[in-house]
Amino acid sequence: MASIFSRIVAGEIPSYKIAENEHCYAFLDINPLKKGHTLVIPKKEVDKLFDLDDELYTELFAFAKSIAAAIKQAYPCDRVGMAVIGLEVPHAHIHLVPINYMSDIDFTRPKLQLSPEEMQEVASAIQAQL
Amino acid sequence: MASIFSRIVAGEIPSYKIAENEHCYAFLDINPLKKGHTLVIPKKEVDKLFDLDDELYTELFAFAKSIAAAIKQAYPCDRVGMAVIGLEVPHAHIHLVPINYMSDIDFTRPKLQLSPEEMQEVASAIQAQL
Repeated sequence: MASIFSRIVAGEIPSYKIAENEHCYAFLDINPLKKGHTLVIPKKEVDKLFDLDDELYTELFAFAKSIAAAIKQAYPCDRVGMAVIGLEVPHAHIHLVPINYMSDIDFTRPKLQLSPEEMQEVASAIQAQL
Repeated sequence: MASIFSRIVAGEIPSYKIAENEHCYAFLDINPLKKGHTLVIPKKEVDKLFDLDDELYTELFAFAKSIAAAIKQAYPCDRVGMAVIGLEVPHAHIHLVPINYMSDIDFTRPKLQLSPEEMQEVASAIQAQL
């Protein structure tokens, strides 16, 4: 069965999309640690990041760099942190989180509860910087 | 003043080195979350990962991919997780941590206390897979 992320890419499940190109897709994490918390994924369904072929792996990180720059402009922060854990959804994904403190990227803490309107505002704010 | 990581690259401060190439360096995190926890850095001292120029950024992630493969062979695990936080040392660094559970890459939990002999064993185990 297709991963939930493949279904998002296919448009079968809605997402707050930030950007996409031929091989990569970026959208808001539905359970954000901070406003601006974004997931960057390859469209191809591969479970583990380091199993991506070198070309797609490189393209994915280049895409993530451009998205991170937009996040930092939309949500001023010390820097954009990155994490790849991936035990929950078997489809490689890079977390990008605007951070000022270590705790901002602590995945054990409670997630933000944002309304659909707030999520759309976040997506639009980042898109405006692309 | 040179960052502690620049001093490690220069050999002024010892490290448990895993590998290096012309522009990148990998060594064990001195406060590991798990055996195999490695830091991958550019030799050039740049504070923030996303401020690296595109070429060095790409090279750093390619280097990290090869190191991650060796870590996974030396320390069998579900996958190698990645994190870039970077608020403590102003020199871009990628954490690579062999993980089976989310908690394995929880930076808020107590670090392992490994003896110098144990650290050297870990470094040798990873190097043997390169």
